[in-house]
Amino acid sequence: MTWRFALIVDPVASDDARSDFADTLRVIDPDAPALSVGELSTQRGDGIFETIGVVDGHPQEVQAHLERLAHSARLCDLPEPNLAQWRAAVARAAAECPPGESAIKLILSRGVERVRTGLQGPTAWVTASPAADQTAARTEGVRVVTLDRGIDGGASARAPWLLLGAKTLSYAVNMAALREAHRRGASDAIFLTSDGYVLEAPTASVILRRGDTFVTPEPTGGILHGTTQLSVFDWLEREGHSTGYEHLPAAALADADGLWLVSSVRLAAPVTHVDGADLPVDRELTAAMNRYLLSPRD
Amino acid sequence: MTWRFALIVDPVASDDARSDFADTLRVIDPDAPALSVGELSTQRGDGIFETIGVVDGHPQEVQAHLERLAHSARLCDLPEPNLAQWRAAVARAAAECPPGESAIKLILSRGVERVRTGLQGPTAWVTASPAADQTAARTEGVRVVTLDRGIDGGASARAPWLLLGAKTLSYAVNMAALREAHRRGASDAIFLTSDGYVLEAPTASVILRRGDTFVTPEPTGGILHGTTQLSVFDWLEREGHSTGYEHLPAAALADADGLWLVSSVRLAAPVTHVDGADLPVDRELTAAMNRYLLSPRD
Repeated sequence: MTWRFALIVDPVASDDARSDFADTLRVIDPDAPALSVGELSTQRGDGIFETIGVVDGHPQEVQAHLERLAHSARLCDLPEPNLAQWRAAVARAAAECPPGESAIKLILSRGVERVRTGLQGPTAWVTASPAADQTAARTEGVRVVTLDRGIDGGASARAPWLLLGAKTLSYAVNMAALREAHRRGASDAIFLTSDGYVLEAPTASVILRRGDTFVTPEPTGGILHGTTQLSVFDWLEREGHSTGYEHLPAAALADADGLWLVSSVRLAAPVTHVDGADLPVDRELTAAMNRYLLSPRD
Repeated sequence: MTWRFALIVDPVASDDARSDFADTLRVIDPDAPALSVGELSTQRGDGIFETIGVVDGHPQEVQAHLERLAHSARLCDLPEPNLAQWRAAVARAAAECPPGESAIKLILSRGVERVRTGLQGPTAWVTASPAADQTAARTEGVRVVTLDRGIDGGASARAPWLLLGAKTLSYAVNMAALREAHRRGASDAIFLTSDGYVLEAPTASVILRRGDTFVTPEPTGGILHGTTQLSVFDWLEREGHSTGYEHLPAAALADADGLWLVSSVRLAAPVTHVDGADLPVDRELTAAMNRYLLSPRD
């Protein structure tokens, strides 16, 4: 049985300290028309989002997602989101999630383009829906191909208007990269800089194991700082492993002692092949990682 | 008085040869909710668009825009649009445009994400609205700054998944570049490759004059082929000028004998300054160019 839930959020000022945001959250029919054709999210991909995993009604790492939403808003010159309001919206959506795994999506759009009168301020909404069954990716793993992201490693610092550290709604390239991966017989991709360094997957972070150390690319170099990657690093450290951020050349992928794509809903997917070359998969460690990721996390 | 018009297009197969598409076009209230929150245009900027200028009810260069829509669809693996249906939709919208200048926008989205049942095929719509008054840009001109687009000149050929030749809905970077230009005291921007060559403006093509020759960057190098630029080149040739496509280094901008940003609605805007350096402006030629662009064109 498929369920779905949607909430229109009427954004309030970031310093609005009211204790109850209920009257700024409006439940709608998720399949009914809700957005106008003037929406700049739809016309320009002009807005930001977050996807939060939900396990048995518990939304995971809400604070980390809200902080990244605020970070994306700053990079995109969007009004600062009121995090207490967004937290209330997440709680409202989580209350609708049945046992099992779900996904909550937060969208903050530039707003609706009005003829002559200009922009009317941001629009926002939250959806919740069941997560697809991720068992195969978590246990059997995923084949990935590397794809050139076109940008060099210095682009993010040099050209902040490229919005490389923001989670914007302009994901057409990420979706095209996944289609290209499927064409090449893989199920996911890892983006490289044009000068050959590892960035991220289109919708996940990359974690690489070398001996007893787990590393991921520096989040300053034009990628998102993964909330799931942060959470996995915390767990790995508690388990006695070391973790770190590194500038990783593409060749490090095929030489890895283990490789994972981690994200909020699929969680940890071990990579079995990179560009056709196979990689060692530690099923036991991966299973433990996913057990941790499926436990309540804040 | 502000007017606005919107039409939902129910996409039909590209080989559907019916003579009347009226029952596939549904007029809606342009301010009413029309799109569902599951729209991939809004969640992922996953779709394509065209903007057509309308003068006194006549939509300009419809065929060139429809061909570019089909080209973008191919690059994005979207179903081939039925151009006869889109032509009917444009005609229906143009019939609503009063005397003066208007803009018709065509949007073809990947569709609505359905939980479990997967994607249900593309969604599409057309809007029409009055054009803002463009007199100042056409006569007084625009100040521009150059901004690094992050990609090198070879990225488009090397990495087609970057969709550089497609007019996608993922325009967050284009919008951020315009905000950066405003912060720097300019009203528009010209993107450069990371290796220092001229690309295009965020929503316009660049035409550069050197003596009696007018040139624009090769459309193969990761930019859109401008419909208005093509039209201006036709006119310039009829007026006895020569035109050409060139690999233009950034330094060519400040050395130009004239520079224009051309697009479907603003038409030809002469550039008065590039990064603060002033450029010669030929008001007479610009006025003639805009008179031509305002005449009915097919």
